[in-house]
Amino acid sequence: MKSDILLFTLFIIYMTTGCSSFIKTEIRGTGDLGVIIERTHGSVLIVENMTNTIIGRVEGLGDLSHASVVFHRSGQYAYVFARDGGLTKIDLLQKKIIHRIIQGGNSIGGAISQDSQFVAVSNYIPGGVKIFSADDLKLIADIPAEYESQKFSKTVGLVDAPNNQFVYSLFEGGQIWLAKIEKDHTVTIKKFTDTGKEPYDGLVSPDGRFYLAGLFGENGIAMIDLWNTEHGAKKVMQNYGKEDLRMPVFKMPHFEGWSMCGHFAIIPGVGHHEVILVNRSNWQEVKRITTHGQPVFAMADPQCRNVLINFALPHNDTLQVLSLEKMQITQTLKLGPGILHMEFTPKGHHVWVSIRDKNEIQIFETEKWTYVKTIPALNPSGIFFTNRAHKIGL
Amino acid sequence: MKSDILLFTLFIIYMTTGCSSFIKTEIRGTGDLGVIIERTHGSVLIVENMTNTIIGRVEGLGDLSHASVVFHRSGQYAYVFARDGGLTKIDLLQKKIIHRIIQGGNSIGGAISQDSQFVAVSNYIPGGVKIFSADDLKLIADIPAEYESQKFSKTVGLVDAPNNQFVYSLFEGGQIWLAKIEKDHTVTIKKFTDTGKEPYDGLVSPDGRFYLAGLFGENGIAMIDLWNTEHGAKKVMQNYGKEDLRMPVFKMPHFEGWSMCGHFAIIPGVGHHEVILVNRSNWQEVKRITTHGQPVFAMADPQCRNVLINFALPHNDTLQVLSLEKMQITQTLKLGPGILHMEFTPKGHHVWVSIRDKNEIQIFETEKWTYVKTIPALNPSGIFFTNRAHKIGL
Repeated sequence: MKSDILLFTLFIIYMTTGCSSFIKTEIRGTGDLGVIIERTHGSVLIVENMTNTIIGRVEGLGDLSHASVVFHRSGQYAYVFARDGGLTKIDLLQKKIIHRIIQGGNSIGGAISQDSQFVAVSNYIPGGVKIFSADDLKLIADIPAEYESQKFSKTVGLVDAPNNQFVYSLFEGGQIWLAKIEKDHTVTIKKFTDTGKEPYDGLVSPDGRFYLAGLFGENGIAMIDLWNTEHGAKKVMQNYGKEDLRMPVFKMPHFEGWSMCGHFAIIPGVGHHEVILVNRSNWQEVKRITTHGQPVFAMADPQCRNVLINFALPHNDTLQVLSLEKMQITQTLKLGPGILHMEFTPKGHHVWVSIRDKNEIQIFETEKWTYVKTIPALNPSGIFFTNRAHKIGL
Repeated sequence: MKSDILLFTLFIIYMTTGCSSFIKTEIRGTGDLGVIIERTHGSVLIVENMTNTIIGRVEGLGDLSHASVVFHRSGQYAYVFARDGGLTKIDLLQKKIIHRIIQGGNSIGGAISQDSQFVAVSNYIPGGVKIFSADDLKLIADIPAEYESQKFSKTVGLVDAPNNQFVYSLFEGGQIWLAKIEKDHTVTIKKFTDTGKEPYDGLVSPDGRFYLAGLFGENGIAMIDLWNTEHGAKKVMQNYGKEDLRMPVFKMPHFEGWSMCGHFAIIPGVGHHEVILVNRSNWQEVKRITTHGQPVFAMADPQCRNVLINFALPHNDTLQVLSLEKMQITQTLKLGPGILHMEFTPKGHHVWVSIRDKNEIQIFETEKWTYVKTIPALNPSGIFFTNRAHKIGL
């Protein structure tokens, strides 16, 4: 009987511990996964874009207004940057939180390094950037944004750039900083101090060469050529913002939602009902295109054939398709109130659209923009697919 | 005692069947995986590019000279196209063959559709293209390349294109065909019949818009604008090949190894010791750059900052770095005999180089081209990372 009990005990232990944890977690690839922010619920949905299904939900992520997400190169881990300073590492396969810290008081946005070893967060309070180990979220570097003695700036527009650099802007400081992190965790900072007043957001071009920052305090856009940093910051589109900031602006466009496609940069006209097509080689306007409302995101498909545009209130129930070939709006889709974000599947076959006030994600194919499927989500905002892990600046 | 034996038996069965299969298979992401062709051994290595390690080997894949690989969107499955007509689906997580068929007599290259549902293979013998289910490799469509009554052509230069299309060239037929496959498996074919003599290889631009085919039987390159197929095929670079084909050509360059980066197409000068930089907007040559030997692959990093070039015999022990900014060779690396292929990590931090005759993969970082690590491989040729799953034409 003793051996009986022993064996039975072994069997039960085996079934309920080691083995069961494998059974609960699916063996599967991660290239077709993604997360959707459920902003009012403090949770994310884990989704799969081959079969258009929800595969899990992870809760307890804090204040997810303005939340953003980056992915580890493996595709297994998502890093969620919350407004309340929360930084959470989620395992998409185990569908649970692996690490969670409150790293600052008020933060907006983060980035992951080219080598996928470091995660950086930009903070409003206290003003600065912190760099963490992508493995265990241990603090590696704390870089206060002290632009003058004892004066600290909000940091915005944080992106990754090639050669394991992070680039970001200092709002009050009117500066752009380039932080390079080495394998031994040494960080060197290069500061651009005459970049223009109040940079409010930034992006890096898809090839990782140019950093652009929109300016709140003056006209134009600050640009740095990261291949030739000795030339300093340059101002492009001198007239951008001149009239716009006199208009009522319902929502500042997010730079990360801007697109650069071949010869074009596609830039929302702040405060206007228009999108501006700009020639990237000389930064001259090619065409202004009238849109249904004030654009928020202008996101190009991977082909750079069409750009999807959503709008600020009171026009946020509408999505428009801009053909870059025809340089005109070709479709206007009324999908419901609170269209907040759009994400294309990796090769652009489908696009997912979050419609916050309908608690829905709607999926469309991109050849004729026909409807494919609706999946439920709690006040969804941002949609992020794992192929972002392999793109500079996302 | 009976229950003793029963329990013991249950325990052993449980450990050696259901559960052990979970234990053998790691729970992990697939975004940092890849495969390396071991051409003379009929095997592939499964590798991981975060830690630069080998995680498995799969054998029994047939004749892997000229083998190529595409990936399912999930990143879990690799499809290996072998010269002997073998088509094998490998599970990178279980590290084993899932399905294997001999689909033709002599084949060279394949592609996976935009939606990741279909795999296509181009065959020399019998001449044509077959389309299979990406799920179970069941035949879905057989499209003989019958360019005149009872005349069949070798098919080459097969790539995927947006809207679930496959594009390929008919060598003897002098045609380019565009096959579109629908959800219900209907295939419609559009044929371009006056594309030039003997197209020998093809590629699609990274945005999926332009298909280009090199011509063996005449000068120039055939080009189709897939957004405006009603315009038919056009000839660009009228002089390309004119003198080149009178030179001894040791190895025809593979088109898939050509690069298109921003304004440039980077094209090997067939038979010459040079690479041609071409302005993509007008297809005029910008500069010819003298290289160490006859270029085979000219592969740009994801930034389009540098292009790595390897060479045909007798110069295949050397790798050169071409700076696209400076438009000159900036590094010459002697790595050993039989440099066959190069693959950048997804964001371009490292590059992996296969050196066949040293049975080695050498890894370099890309900022200063310093050496990182060597990993052993049996006569390695092609290196393919899973992020290709998310790129049109790869």
